[in-house]
Amino acid sequence: MEFPNIPKGTRDFSSIEMSKRNYLIQVIREKFELFGFYPIETPSFENISTLVGKYGEEGDYLMFKLLHSGNVLKKRISDFFRKINSKEKTVDVAKFLNEHLSNKALRYDLTVPFVRYVVMHKNEIVFPFKRYQIQPVWRADKPQKGRFREFYQCDADIVSSYGSLWEEIELIQLCDEIFTKLNFPIIIYINHRDILGGLVEISGIKNNLWKDFTTSLDKWNKIGRDLVKKEMLRKGISSQSFEKIAFFFDMKENFSKKEKHLTVAFQYSKKGKKGIKDLSFIYKNIRRISLQNTKLEWNISLARGMNYYTGTILEIVPFHNNGYSNLISIGGGGRYDQLANLFGMKNVSGVGVSLGLDRIYLAMEKKNLFQTISNYPSKVLFINFGDEEVLYAYKMINFLRKKGISTQLYPHTVKIGKQFRYANDNNIPFTISIGKNEIKRNKIRVKNLKERTEKEYDNINDIVNQLIQ
Amino acid sequence: MEFPNIPKGTRDFSSIEMSKRNYLIQVIREKFELFGFYPIETPSFENISTLVGKYGEEGDYLMFKLLHSGNVLKKRISDFFRKINSKEKTVDVAKFLNEHLSNKALRYDLTVPFVRYVVMHKNEIVFPFKRYQIQPVWRADKPQKGRFREFYQCDADIVSSYGSLWEEIELIQLCDEIFTKLNFPIIIYINHRDILGGLVEISGIKNNLWKDFTTSLDKWNKIGRDLVKKEMLRKGISSQSFEKIAFFFDMKENFSKKEKHLTVAFQYSKKGKKGIKDLSFIYKNIRRISLQNTKLEWNISLARGMNYYTGTILEIVPFHNNGYSNLISIGGGGRYDQLANLFGMKNVSGVGVSLGLDRIYLAMEKKNLFQTISNYPSKVLFINFGDEEVLYAYKMINFLRKKGISTQLYPHTVKIGKQFRYANDNNIPFTISIGKNEIKRNKIRVKNLKERTEKEYDNINDIVNQLIQ
Repeated sequence: MEFPNIPKGTRDFSSIEMSKRNYLIQVIREKFELFGFYPIETPSFENISTLVGKYGEEGDYLMFKLLHSGNVLKKRISDFFRKINSKEKTVDVAKFLNEHLSNKALRYDLTVPFVRYVVMHKNEIVFPFKRYQIQPVWRADKPQKGRFREFYQCDADIVSSYGSLWEEIELIQLCDEIFTKLNFPIIIYINHRDILGGLVEISGIKNNLWKDFTTSLDKWNKIGRDLVKKEMLRKGISSQSFEKIAFFFDMKENFSKKEKHLTVAFQYSKKGKKGIKDLSFIYKNIRRISLQNTKLEWNISLARGMNYYTGTILEIVPFHNNGYSNLISIGGGGRYDQLANLFGMKNVSGVGVSLGLDRIYLAMEKKNLFQTISNYPSKVLFINFGDEEVLYAYKMINFLRKKGISTQLYPHTVKIGKQFRYANDNNIPFTISIGKNEIKRNKIRVKNLKERTEKEYDNINDIVNQLIQ
Repeated sequence: MEFPNIPKGTRDFSSIEMSKRNYLIQVIREKFELFGFYPIETPSFENISTLVGKYGEEGDYLMFKLLHSGNVLKKRISDFFRKINSKEKTVDVAKFLNEHLSNKALRYDLTVPFVRYVVMHKNEIVFPFKRYQIQPVWRADKPQKGRFREFYQCDADIVSSYGSLWEEIELIQLCDEIFTKLNFPIIIYINHRDILGGLVEISGIKNNLWKDFTTSLDKWNKIGRDLVKKEMLRKGISSQSFEKIAFFFDMKENFSKKEKHLTVAFQYSKKGKKGIKDLSFIYKNIRRISLQNTKLEWNISLARGMNYYTGTILEIVPFHNNGYSNLISIGGGGRYDQLANLFGMKNVSGVGVSLGLDRIYLAMEKKNLFQTISNYPSKVLFINFGDEEVLYAYKMINFLRKKGISTQLYPHTVKIGKQFRYANDNNIPFTISIGKNEIKRNKIRVKNLKERTEKEYDNINDIVNQLIQ
């Protein structure tokens, strides 16, 4: 018999961890609803055809696929057997297995299932459609610090037939509100895919290198200019092209200065101009409305991994004073104008933010921001003196529960010391003892474990107030 | 381009459905905590070795298995390729695929992962350990009415080194409290595996037919005596054995009469006596404590499908006056004394109830019990008259949100009629209009959409009270 374990990259959550996670979810949900987002949920697995090709090659590779179950699998395998045994020796085994063993995969993010939802339910939906979704996603990534194979995303999105930059402004305000409530200062990095598009245009980088360009650029703050250049050259981007635009990614100036430089550079780039105009609108209105606890910063080298972004892109990191390095992203987002198109629905512009619950949890744990969260709901433990005594006490247990006071009965008639230890270990602040002696005298003995005091009462009603405190 | 769909047996949940589901979850969670159960969560998938063999043959068959991902799968396939192409033609393809393509499976219930959790974390746990868990489970069952491939279970369990029948009593009280709060009267059917064991003993049915016996017996209320008999005979149980005990499953008498009959029958069955003694203890104490909205009924033909039950078994169905037929079980539970043993931990007795969220939802929908649930958090929509007007209004939007009032801004500057229609369709009760005219006159125009009244205010503070109502 093997000692049981869980798959790598997954976790159990104890009740202490759950209380903190539930607190985070509750704050995020409350703020999502404060901004008028409504909840939906989608299934844990989708048809592979829904997911595949939406996240880039890496995404297709890291998706968890479900093996056909029962009869279907048996049939597939016996078909396969027949092919192998027949003369068709040319069958491509790898391809066959890949294509025939599975047609479902676990959710990889919440955005693609959401857009699939919008397309499927378009006739019931009132547009602009504001939804939120707090559910796990799964990726077969190599597990490492802060990266899990099962983790929760908290997404708020707006879709309508045409975008409005006020949507971006609302989402930034929303993040500010959430992290202010959590007492957790953040930086939101902002950029625009059209600015990157403009830079590619003026640099002379070929269109077919666009994905390679953005993938490498996204590492700028992590691995630095030199390694990014090396990677880009390896991918076929010329040194000349790189140097033409690298200056912009190095800029340490404020928004207006950056804006000026790029406006000059984008003199002939319609795309670049559009990006600058959108970003200025967002940035300037946010400055006039102001944020509480959040810094909004233009990061020209921000590119974001997902294929589907087409406009504004956002990334959320904990606030820091000393440079970018070693920063773990705790959220991101952006605008996606073409995603619904892939499902055959035209003129749908979407924009959203996605918060990484597990990353936020880890960062808050590190900053000691959960101090006030209690995970122990129970207020009182009834000591078990025997069946008759328990039966006598049970009407009081019911009475306290009716008052909304979390009440436990120790299930076994064991030594009193063991029962008190249970109360202590579970942080239950009070015990109530009703033994034969108390029954005879019509008394209720209450112990306050924290203050180590004991008092007798005549009526259960007299105890309620101190238990509720 | 294919119109997107979702896998059969799975569902999307709209915000209306979510508000009802969240209400149910909130009530269940609140009551679990009222009784001193603490939350934990386990991963969505477990190692197959953890799950396999715990649910009977059907369970192993209906488990959703995850295909190895990325490199592992490639390696498995190429190993396979090599075997096929080498001289080892004798390889059992079906077996190979089954054993080598997957080592993880989606959770099939919450009980087995919970017991795995207890064994893995035994050194951190305070026993008796009371936990609850509200999470989805997955079964590749044939989808039909009320049966889904992804559905939520809400489990409360207690494990300790030895059982106490007060645990069963607490769980029955807990169910009564939950369904009373939901205004949903239920019947809890109760039985005991040792009573069935005793009946098998006195009937002369062979031990190796135990599983067949319980599986068939469980259908008694659904398909009736004759078909159960037919099935049992087919499985090798003799007609004589069947008739010896069928009388007990037919009994329509009250608890005491049934108890009397069985006490006589179990004169020489230690197992049967134990079952009767346990059940009497539970039944009689529950009667003395009393239940609010729940009927507890002894159903001798109740057997329950899961392999792991060893003592008390419970099944929850909606209250009905007219017989058993067509009743959909909305929950169940029981005691399992041997489950932790399978993971190498001795002396662990567990008992729990599992509520089927989706079944409860459907039954309550049918009974129209969700009438009072509202899914529309938003109280007010700000009409969008243009960027300058929105910017002017935004400080009021922020003000209302700081007051906890869910406030929306229509993101686009479109025709006013369209914006009002959005408020209507989303059941938003108020709109606030601040156009150029209002800005000039320093006024705030508030419309009550339900009462079709409109009023002007000087100060946003004056509006708060009516929005909070």
